Amino acid sequence: MITALAGGVGAAKFLTGLVRVVDPAALTVVVNVADDETFHGLHVSPDLDSVTYALGGVNDLEQGWGRADETFRTIDELARFGVESWFRLGDLDLATHLLRTERLRAGEPLSRITATVAAAFGLRCRLIPVTDDRLRTIITATDPATGAPRPFAMQEWFVRHRGTPDVLGVEFDGAARARPAPGVLDAISDADIVLVCPSNPVISVGPLLAVPGVRDALAWRRERVVAISPIVGGAPVRGPADRLMAPLGIEVSSLGVARHYRDLCGTLVIDNMDADLAPDISALGVRCVVTDTLMRDHTIAAALAERALAAVA
Amino acid sequence: MITALAGGVGAAKFLTGLVRVVDPAALTVVVNVADDETFHGLHVSPDLDSVTYALGGVNDLEQGWGRADETFRTIDELARFGVESWFRLGDLDLATHLLRTERLRAGEPLSRITATVAAAFGLRCRLIPVTDDRLRTIITATDPATGAPRPFAMQEWFVRHRGTPDVLGVEFDGAARARPAPGVLDAISDADIVLVCPSNPVISVGPLLAVPGVRDALAWRRERVVAISPIVGGAPVRGPADRLMAPLGIEVSSLGVARHYRDLCGTLVIDNMDADLAPDISALGVRCVVTDTLMRDHTIAAALAERALAAVA
Repeated sequence: MITALAGGVGAAKFLTGLVRVVDPAALTVVVNVADDETFHGLHVSPDLDSVTYALGGVNDLEQGWGRADETFRTIDELARFGVESWFRLGDLDLATHLLRTERLRAGEPLSRITATVAAAFGLRCRLIPVTDDRLRTIITATDPATGAPRPFAMQEWFVRHRGTPDVLGVEFDGAARARPAPGVLDAISDADIVLVCPSNPVISVGPLLAVPGVRDALAWRRERVVAISPIVGGAPVRGPADRLMAPLGIEVSSLGVARHYRDLCGTLVIDNMDADLAPDISALGVRCVVTDTLMRDHTIAAALAERALAAVA
Repeated sequence: MITALAGGVGAAKFLTGLVRVVDPAALTVVVNVADDETFHGLHVSPDLDSVTYALGGVNDLEQGWGRADETFRTIDELARFGVESWFRLGDLDLATHLLRTERLRAGEPLSRITATVAAAFGLRCRLIPVTDDRLRTIITATDPATGAPRPFAMQEWFVRHRGTPDVLGVEFDGAARARPAPGVLDAISDADIVLVCPSNPVISVGPLLAVPGVRDALAWRRERVVAISPIVGGAPVRGPADRLMAPLGIEVSSLGVARHYRDLCGTLVIDNMDADLAPDISALGVRCVVTDTLMRDHTIAAALAERALAAVA
């Protein structure tokens, strides 16, 4: 039994490698939902969908998010009404959001809807949102227009403002009252190996850890927890991790990641490029595995997954 | 000042002719909303949209409903989830439904949203749903599977079952409590001429008349009310009017329409093909105008509108 904690695009890449080296039926993926947002009345779950589309083989490999062969007819037409359309919902993607929104309104929990969507895309692993309750990343950052600090929703900061407003703080709204979705804590406790995917430590893994019970469940299994560092050569492979880690006092390096995760992870997998950091990471009491972490194709992703699993096998 | 009472496709055709012969700024169109339905969580208003798209010049002329150059990516993708998709929502069309649904959920009345949508499509006339309250046509018909009578929503009967289940009765759910939308009664009372478009008398004009106050407002203006018969040669030009009129005891002819409307309409415009019915219609106390009512193009529609207006000018 293997459990993976996942954010969006980086995790999705890693997981497409992982399902090549383990039986997907033995895999549970616990996914961040704190980037979820309502656009045009529809509930959008970017990380759940990135993972689902990637594992379903229908993701857009070029841009890294959304569906392959996507079109944007509806969102472009919404511009006619003077509606903001900076979050580019594709026409195929919309079907997922319509289904999810209708069922949420009918009272179905997100975890059950997620299972339905995953099955529809042919996923053989289990996909669980970390919580069925409302959990939202709120980034306090400097408003580019006024120069004053204000709260930004994650998508507003990252997509609308391209992650440029200077970050002053990050909070997870709803975390105190959020309950882990059914199966989340068991998946961590019962797993032979728990993998922390190469996702943004602050806003992808951070919200998972903020749900009461998750951090403790991981800490209990520390020796079986393997994280893959999303930082290579002092910069994130993709995404805005550096712009979030630095202001929160987390060094933008695999050593910084090791310090951040040391209470939860017995092992950290880092890139060959950062081999010189291995002694310092080991000195923290974190076993260090050095390998190629730049997942340029599925074969490299599969090899990386294999190395991560082997570290505690 | 001219006011038109409208259903969907037939009305839309007539109105595209009407705006060629009158100043659209002097025109108010009161539209049926009893065919509205929720599909995939979205509020769809087929008649409002048919009229809006036609007057906006973006309608599909071939099939008579929906947008020109339409695609069906989202609705086809929804089939992946095993969701019923017999109501074919197009990708461009979806933008309208998303806007409408989001604003309705936010508490905005349908009449205000309709004005916004109409403006976005460049309409210069005023478009008003007959009511902001819930009003739904319920057709009691024979279930094709069981052979037993049961209630059908209008779209279910007409689109899903292609209007084939035998009709036993028609009701307008919500009519007793529905209030005319702001401006509806004034538009009828203040108009120099009130036109009843060539729409289905039972399920397009019927719901308009079922909203308390509308029928009386029309009856008061009877001498200024001109209806265009949607029946030519004993059959509807388009749509299922015959399958609804006959079971309700309304003869499927322009004479049947005249009898049905006689308390409200001083004048009925009928097709050349039905010229022989003119004496019987006149005998009912309904002035009869005989002309070409088959709107094969905008020019004929405009000539028809001109004849209708001239009847009481």
